[in-house]
Amino acid sequence: MKALILTADGFEDMELFYPLYRMKEENIDVDIAGSIKGEVFGKHGYRVEANLTFAQVNPDQYDLLILPGGKGPEKVRLDTDALKITKTMMESCKVIAAICHASQILISAGLVKDKQMTCWQGVRDDLKAAGAHYLDREVVIDGNLITSRMPDDLPAFCRTIFSVLKIGVEG
Amino acid sequence: MKALILTADGFEDMELFYPLYRMKEENIDVDIAGSIKGEVFGKHGYRVEANLTFAQVNPDQYDLLILPGGKGPEKVRLDTDALKITKTMMESCKVIAAICHASQILISAGLVKDKQMTCWQGVRDDLKAAGAHYLDREVVIDGNLITSRMPDDLPAFCRTIFSVLKIGVEG
Repeated sequence: MKALILTADGFEDMELFYPLYRMKEENIDVDIAGSIKGEVFGKHGYRVEANLTFAQVNPDQYDLLILPGGKGPEKVRLDTDALKITKTMMESCKVIAAICHASQILISAGLVKDKQMTCWQGVRDDLKAAGAHYLDREVVIDGNLITSRMPDDLPAFCRTIFSVLKIGVEG
Repeated sequence: MKALILTADGFEDMELFYPLYRMKEENIDVDIAGSIKGEVFGKHGYRVEANLTFAQVNPDQYDLLILPGGKGPEKVRLDTDALKITKTMMESCKVIAAICHASQILISAGLVKDKQMTCWQGVRDDLKAAGAHYLDREVVIDGNLITSRMPDDLPAFCRTIFSVLKIGVEG
Protein backbone atom coordinates (compact mmCIF):
# COMPACT_ATOMS: atom_id res chain seq x y z
CA MET A 1 0.00 0.00 0.00
CA LYS A 2 1.44 3.37 -1.01
CA ALA A 3 -0.04 6.89 -1.05
CA LEU A 4 0.84 10.04 -2.96
CA ILE A 5 0.15 13.67 -1.98
CA LEU A 6 0.32 16.48 -4.56
CA THR A 7 0.89 19.89 -3.07
CA ALA A 8 2.23 23.45 -3.41
CA ASP A 9 2.88 26.47 -1.17
CA GLY A 10 -0.23 27.68 0.63
CA PHE A 11 -1.65 24.19 1.33
CA GLU A 12 -4.18 23.95 4.16
CA ASP A 13 -1.90 22.65 6.91
CA MET A 14 -4.36 20.37 8.71
CA GLU A 15 -5.65 18.95 5.40
CA LEU A 16 -2.14 17.86 4.43
CA PHE A 17 -0.81 16.75 7.82
CA TYR A 18 -3.86 14.91 9.13
CA PRO A 19 -3.97 12.45 6.19
CA LEU A 20 -0.13 12.29 6.10
CA TYR A 21 0.10 11.40 9.80
CA ARG A 22 -2.85 8.99 9.48
CA MET A 23 -1.01 7.07 6.74
CA LYS A 24 2.14 7.00 8.90
CA GLU A 25 0.09 5.83 11.89
CA GLU A 26 -0.99 2.86 9.74
CA ASN A 27 2.59 2.32 8.49
CA ILE A 28 1.58 3.20 4.91
CA ASP A 29 4.35 4.72 2.76
CA VAL A 30 3.64 8.24 1.51
CA ASP A 31 5.42 10.25 -1.18
CA ILE A 32 4.89 14.01 -1.37
CA ALA A 33 5.27 15.62 -4.79
CA GLY A 34 5.64 19.30 -5.67
CA SER A 35 6.69 21.34 -8.70
CA ILE A 36 10.24 21.22 -7.28
CA LYS A 37 11.72 19.03 -4.53
CA GLY A 38 12.23 20.51 -1.07
CA GLU A 39 10.29 22.50 1.50
CA VAL A 40 6.67 23.44 0.84
CA PHE A 41 4.92 25.92 3.16
CA GLY A 42 1.38 25.70 4.50
CA LYS A 43 -0.85 28.77 4.91
CA HIS A 44 -0.58 28.41 8.71
CA GLY A 45 3.23 28.16 8.69
CA TYR A 46 3.82 24.40 8.85
CA ARG A 47 6.42 22.97 6.45
CA VAL A 48 6.62 19.67 4.64
CA GLU A 49 9.33 18.18 2.41
CA ALA A 50 8.40 17.28 -1.19
CA ASN A 51 10.57 14.23 -1.90
CA LEU A 52 9.60 14.07 -5.60
CA THR A 53 8.76 16.50 -8.39
CA PHE A 54 5.48 16.04 -10.26
CA ALA A 55 7.55 15.04 -13.33
CA GLN A 56 9.28 12.24 -11.38
CA VAL A 57 6.06 10.56 -10.21
CA ASN A 58 5.11 7.17 -11.63
CA PRO A 59 1.35 7.04 -10.86
CA ASP A 60 1.25 3.23 -11.27
CA GLN A 61 3.18 2.87 -7.98
CA TYR A 62 0.35 4.24 -5.83
CA ASP A 63 -2.96 2.96 -4.44
CA LEU A 64 -4.20 6.30 -3.13
CA LEU A 65 -3.95 9.94 -4.24
CA ILE A 66 -4.52 12.59 -1.54
CA LEU A 67 -5.20 16.16 -2.66
CA PRO A 68 -5.20 18.65 0.25
CA GLY A 69 -6.91 22.04 -0.08
CA GLY A 70 -6.00 25.61 0.86
CA LYS A 71 -4.23 27.84 -1.64
CA GLY A 72 -2.01 25.03 -2.99
CA PRO A 73 -4.51 23.64 -5.56
CA GLU A 74 -4.54 26.92 -7.55
CA LYS A 75 -0.84 26.28 -8.24
CA VAL A 76 -1.03 22.49 -8.65
CA ARG A 77 -3.80 22.81 -11.28
CA LEU A 78 -1.42 24.79 -13.54
CA ASP A 79 1.08 21.92 -13.75
CA THR A 80 0.46 19.54 -16.65
CA ASP A 81 2.39 16.70 -14.97
CA ALA A 82 0.23 17.01 -11.84
CA LEU A 83 -2.93 16.87 -13.97
CA LYS A 84 -1.60 13.85 -15.87
CA ILE A 85 -0.94 11.99 -12.58
CA THR A 86 -4.46 12.75 -11.38
CA LYS A 87 -6.07 11.62 -14.66
CA THR A 88 -4.02 8.41 -14.82
CA MET A 89 -4.87 7.46 -11.25
CA MET A 90 -8.57 8.21 -11.78
CA GLU A 91 -8.64 6.11 -14.96
CA SER A 92 -6.82 3.24 -13.18
CA CYS A 93 -9.54 3.35 -10.48
CA LYS A 94 -7.08 4.20 -7.70
CA VAL A 95 -8.66 5.89 -4.67
CA ILE A 96 -8.67 9.70 -5.15
CA ALA A 97 -9.31 11.69 -1.95
CA ALA A 98 -9.75 15.44 -2.46
CA ILE A 99 -10.70 17.96 0.21
CA CYS A 100 -11.69 21.65 0.19
CA HIS A 101 -10.13 23.60 -2.74
CA ALA A 102 -8.62 20.41 -4.21
CA SER A 103 -11.74 20.26 -6.40
CA GLN A 104 -9.92 22.90 -8.49
CA ILE A 105 -7.33 20.30 -9.53
CA LEU A 106 -10.06 17.83 -10.50
CA ILE A 107 -11.85 20.50 -12.56
CA SER A 108 -8.64 21.34 -14.47
CA ALA A 109 -7.98 17.63 -15.02
CA GLY A 110 -11.46 17.34 -16.59
CA LEU A 111 -12.60 14.72 -14.10
CA VAL A 112 -15.73 16.13 -12.44
CA LYS A 113 -18.49 15.93 -15.08
CA ASP A 114 -21.53 13.98 -13.78
CA LYS A 115 -19.67 13.08 -10.56
CA GLN A 116 -21.30 13.35 -7.11
CA MET A 117 -18.91 15.56 -5.15
CA THR A 118 -18.43 18.12 -2.42
CA CYS A 119 -15.82 20.87 -1.87
CA TRP A 120 -15.18 24.16 -0.04
CA GLN A 121 -18.31 26.32 -0.35
CA GLY A 122 -16.37 29.24 -1.90
CA VAL A 123 -15.63 27.19 -5.03
CA ARG A 124 -18.78 25.06 -5.19
CA ASP A 125 -20.23 27.13 -8.08
CA ASP A 126 -17.14 26.30 -10.18
CA LEU A 127 -17.66 22.63 -9.44
CA LYS A 128 -21.33 22.88 -10.47
CA ALA A 129 -20.45 24.83 -13.62
CA ALA A 130 -17.97 22.10 -14.56
CA GLY A 131 -20.80 19.55 -14.48
CA ALA A 132 -20.50 17.93 -11.05
CA HIS A 133 -23.48 17.18 -8.80
CA TYR A 134 -22.50 19.16 -5.68
CA LEU A 135 -23.66 17.92 -2.27
CA ASP A 136 -23.22 19.79 1.03
CA ARG A 137 -22.06 16.78 3.12
CA GLU A 138 -18.96 16.08 5.21
CA VAL A 139 -17.96 13.34 2.80
CA VAL A 140 -19.23 12.21 -0.60
CA ILE A 141 -18.21 8.98 -2.36
CA ASP A 142 -18.61 8.44 -6.10
CA GLY A 143 -16.89 5.24 -7.19
CA ASN A 144 -13.19 5.66 -6.39
CA LEU A 145 -13.55 9.41 -5.70
CA ILE A 146 -13.88 10.66 -2.10
CA THR A 147 -14.44 14.38 -1.43
CA SER A 148 -14.87 16.54 1.68
CA ARG A 149 -15.44 20.23 2.37
CA MET A 150 -13.04 21.51 5.06
CA PRO A 151 -10.68 20.65 7.97
CA ASP A 152 -13.50 19.71 10.36
CA ASP A 153 -14.54 17.00 7.88
CA LEU A 154 -11.13 15.27 8.22
CA PRO A 155 -12.31 12.55 10.65
CA ALA A 156 -15.07 11.46 8.22
CA PHE A 157 -12.74 11.95 5.22
CA CYS A 158 -10.05 9.62 6.59
CA ARG A 159 -12.56 7.10 8.02
CA THR A 160 -13.99 6.87 4.49
CA ILE A 161 -10.57 6.60 2.82
CA PHE A 162 -9.70 3.61 5.01
CA SER A 163 -13.09 2.05 4.50
CA VAL A 164 -12.83 2.33 0.67
CA LEU A 165 -9.19 1.14 0.65
CA LYS A 166 -10.13 -1.88 2.75
CA ILE A 167 -12.95 -2.79 0.35
CA GLY A 168 -10.51 -2.27 -2.54
CA VAL A 169 -7.81 -4.41 -0.96
CA GLU A 170 -10.01 -7.20 0.37
CA GLY A 171 -12.66 -7.24 -2.33
CA MET B 1 -15.16 5.60 25.96
CA LYS B 2 -14.69 9.32 26.57
CA ALA B 3 -11.64 11.61 26.26
CA LEU B 4 -10.77 14.97 27.80
CA ILE B 5 -8.40 17.63 26.46
CA LEU B 6 -7.06 20.41 28.73
CA THR B 7 -5.89 23.47 26.85
CA ALA B 8 -5.24 27.23 26.76
CA ASP B 9 -4.36 29.91 24.18
CA GLY B 10 -1.12 29.19 22.35
CA PHE B 11 -1.65 25.42 22.08
CA GLU B 12 0.33 23.63 19.36
CA ASP B 13 -2.37 23.35 16.71
CA MET B 14 -1.43 19.97 15.24
CA GLU B 15 -0.95 18.46 18.72
CA LEU B 16 -4.50 19.38 19.70
CA PHE B 17 -6.30 18.74 16.40
CA TYR B 18 -4.61 15.48 15.39
CA PRO B 19 -5.68 13.63 18.58
CA LEU B 20 -9.07 15.43 18.58
CA TYR B 21 -9.83 14.39 14.99
CA ARG B 22 -8.47 10.86 15.67
CA MET B 23 -10.94 10.45 18.54
CA LYS B 24 -13.76 11.73 16.31
CA GLU B 25 -12.67 9.37 13.51
CA GLU B 26 -13.14 6.51 16.01
CA ASN B 27 -16.47 7.97 17.20
CA ILE B 28 -15.06 8.61 20.70
CA ASP B 29 -16.64 11.54 22.60
CA VAL B 30 -14.23 14.35 23.46
CA ASP B 31 -14.68 17.25 25.88
CA ILE B 32 -12.34 20.23 25.68
CA ALA B 33 -11.76 22.18 28.89
CA GLY B 34 -10.21 25.62 29.34
CA SER B 35 -10.00 28.23 32.11
CA ILE B 36 -13.17 29.74 30.62
CA LYS B 37 -15.65 28.32 28.08
CA GLY B 38 -15.44 29.45 24.46
CA GLU B 39 -12.83 29.91 21.76
CA VAL B 40 -9.21 28.98 22.41
CA PHE B 41 -6.53 30.00 19.90
CA GLY B 42 -3.62 27.88 18.68
CA LYS B 43 -0.17 29.36 18.00
CA HIS B 44 -0.69 28.77 14.25
CA GLY B 45 -4.11 30.46 14.20
CA TYR B 46 -6.51 27.52 14.41
CA ARG B 47 -9.40 27.85 16.89
CA VAL B 48 -11.17 25.31 19.03
CA GLU B 49 -14.19 25.61 21.34
CA ALA B 50 -13.73 24.78 25.03
CA ASN B 51 -17.12 23.31 26.01
CA LEU B 52 -16.25 23.08 29.73
CA THR B 53 -14.23 25.07 32.26
CA PHE B 54 -11.57 23.23 34.28
CA ALA B 55 -13.77 23.75 37.36
CA GLN B 56 -16.73 22.01 35.67
CA VAL B 57 -14.83 18.84 34.79
CA ASN B 58 -15.65 15.59 36.60
CA PRO B 59 -12.49 13.51 35.95
CA ASP B 60 -14.30 10.24 36.78
CA GLN B 61 -16.24 10.54 33.50
CA TYR B 62 -13.16 10.06 31.29
CA ASP B 63 -11.00 7.15 30.14
CA LEU B 64 -8.29 9.25 28.51
CA LEU B 65 -6.65 12.63 29.22
CA ILE B 66 -4.90 14.32 26.27
CA LEU B 67 -2.49 17.17 27.02
CA PRO B 68 -1.33 18.99 23.84
CA GLY B 69 1.86 21.08 23.87
CA GLY B 70 2.83 24.49 22.52
CA LYS B 71 2.48 27.58 24.70
CA GLY B 72 -0.79 26.41 26.29
CA PRO B 73 0.73 24.25 29.06
CA GLU B 74 2.47 27.27 30.69
CA LYS B 75 -1.04 28.64 31.32
CA VAL B 76 -2.76 25.34 32.14
CA ARG B 77 -0.12 24.52 34.82
CA LEU B 78 -1.12 27.66 36.77
CA ASP B 79 -4.71 26.47 37.22
CA THR B 80 -5.28 24.42 40.39
CA ASP B 81 -8.43 22.78 38.96
CA ALA B 82 -6.50 21.62 35.88
CA LEU B 83 -3.76 20.14 38.09
CA LYS B 84 -6.37 18.43 40.28
CA ILE B 85 -7.99 16.81 37.20
CA THR B 86 -4.58 15.57 36.02
CA LYS B 87 -3.66 14.14 39.45
CA THR B 88 -7.03 12.44 39.90
CA MET B 89 -6.88 10.81 36.46
CA MET B 90 -3.29 9.65 37.02
CA GLU B 91 -4.19 8.16 40.42
CA SER B 92 -7.26 6.41 38.91
CA CYS B 93 -4.91 4.83 36.29
CA LYS B 94 -6.70 6.50 33.37
CA VAL B 95 -4.58 6.83 30.23
CA ILE B 96 -2.66 10.14 30.29
CA ALA B 97 -1.21 11.19 26.90
CA ALA B 98 1.08 14.24 27.03
CA ILE B 99 3.08 15.64 24.11
CA CYS B 100 5.78 18.31 23.77
CA HIS B 101 5.51 21.09 26.42
CA ALA B 102 2.64 19.27 28.20
CA SER B 103 5.33 17.81 30.47
CA GLN B 104 5.14 21.22 32.21
CA ILE B 105 1.63 20.40 33.44
CA LEU B 106 2.78 17.01 34.75
CA ILE B 107 5.73 18.64 36.57
CA SER B 108 3.43 21.17 38.28
CA ALA B 109 1.01 18.39 39.22
CA GLY B 110 3.94 16.56 40.89
CA LEU B 111 3.52 13.47 38.73
CA VAL B 112 6.88 12.93 37.03
CA LYS B 113 9.27 11.67 39.76
CA ASP B 114 10.88 8.35 38.76
CA LYS B 115 8.72 8.13 35.60
CA GLN B 116 10.16 7.16 32.19
CA MET B 117 9.14 10.04 29.93
CA THR B 118 9.93 12.20 26.94
CA CYS B 119 9.04 15.82 26.01
CA TRP B 120 10.07 18.74 23.82
CA GLN B 121 13.86 19.09 24.00
CA GLY B 122 13.70 22.73 25.15
CA VAL B 123 12.13 21.68 28.46
CA ARG B 124 13.79 18.28 28.97
CA ASP B 125 16.15 19.66 31.63
CA ASP B 126 13.13 20.73 33.73
CA LEU B 127 11.73 17.22 33.41
CA LYS B 128 15.05 15.71 34.50
CA ALA B 129 15.37 18.18 37.40
CA ALA B 130 11.88 17.18 38.56
CA GLY B 131 13.06 13.57 38.83
CA ALA B 132 11.89 11.94 35.60
CA HIS B 133 14.02 9.56 33.53
CA TYR B 134 14.07 11.40 30.19
CA LEU B 135 14.35 9.39 26.96
CA ASP B 136 14.80 10.86 23.46
CA ARG B 137 12.23 8.64 21.69
CA GLU B 138 9.13 9.35 19.58
CA VAL B 139 6.96 7.75 22.25
CA VAL B 140 7.61 6.52 25.79
CA ILE B 141 5.16 4.44 27.86
CA ASP B 142 5.34 4.18 31.65
CA GLY B 143 2.29 2.41 33.02
CA ASN B 144 -0.72 4.54 32.08
CA LEU B 145 1.45 7.52 31.02
CA ILE B 146 2.24 8.03 27.30
CA THR B 147 4.57 10.88 26.26
CA SER B 148 5.93 12.18 22.94
CA ARG B 149 8.27 15.00 21.86
CA MET B 150 6.74 16.98 18.99
CA PRO B 151 4.19 17.12 16.12
CA ASP B 152 6.08 14.63 13.92
CA ASP B 153 5.69 12.05 16.71
CA LEU B 154 1.87 12.24 16.47
CA PRO B 155 1.46 9.05 14.38
CA ALA B 156 3.38 6.99 16.99
CA PHE B 157 1.69 8.91 19.85
CA CYS B 158 -1.84 8.10 18.67
CA ARG B 159 -0.99 4.54 17.59
CA THR B 160 0.24 3.99 21.18
CA ILE B 161 -2.81 5.66 22.76
CA PHE B 162 -5.14 3.29 20.88
CA SER B 163 -2.96 0.31 21.66
CA VAL B 164 -2.93 1.10 25.42
CA LEU B 165 -6.67 1.91 25.47
CA LYS B 166 -7.43 -1.39 23.72
CA ILE B 167 -5.42 -3.34 26.29
CA GLY B 168 -7.22 -1.38 29.00
CA VAL B 169 -10.66 -2.03 27.53
CA GLU B 170 -10.18 -5.66 26.56
CA GLY B 171 -7.79 -6.76 29.30
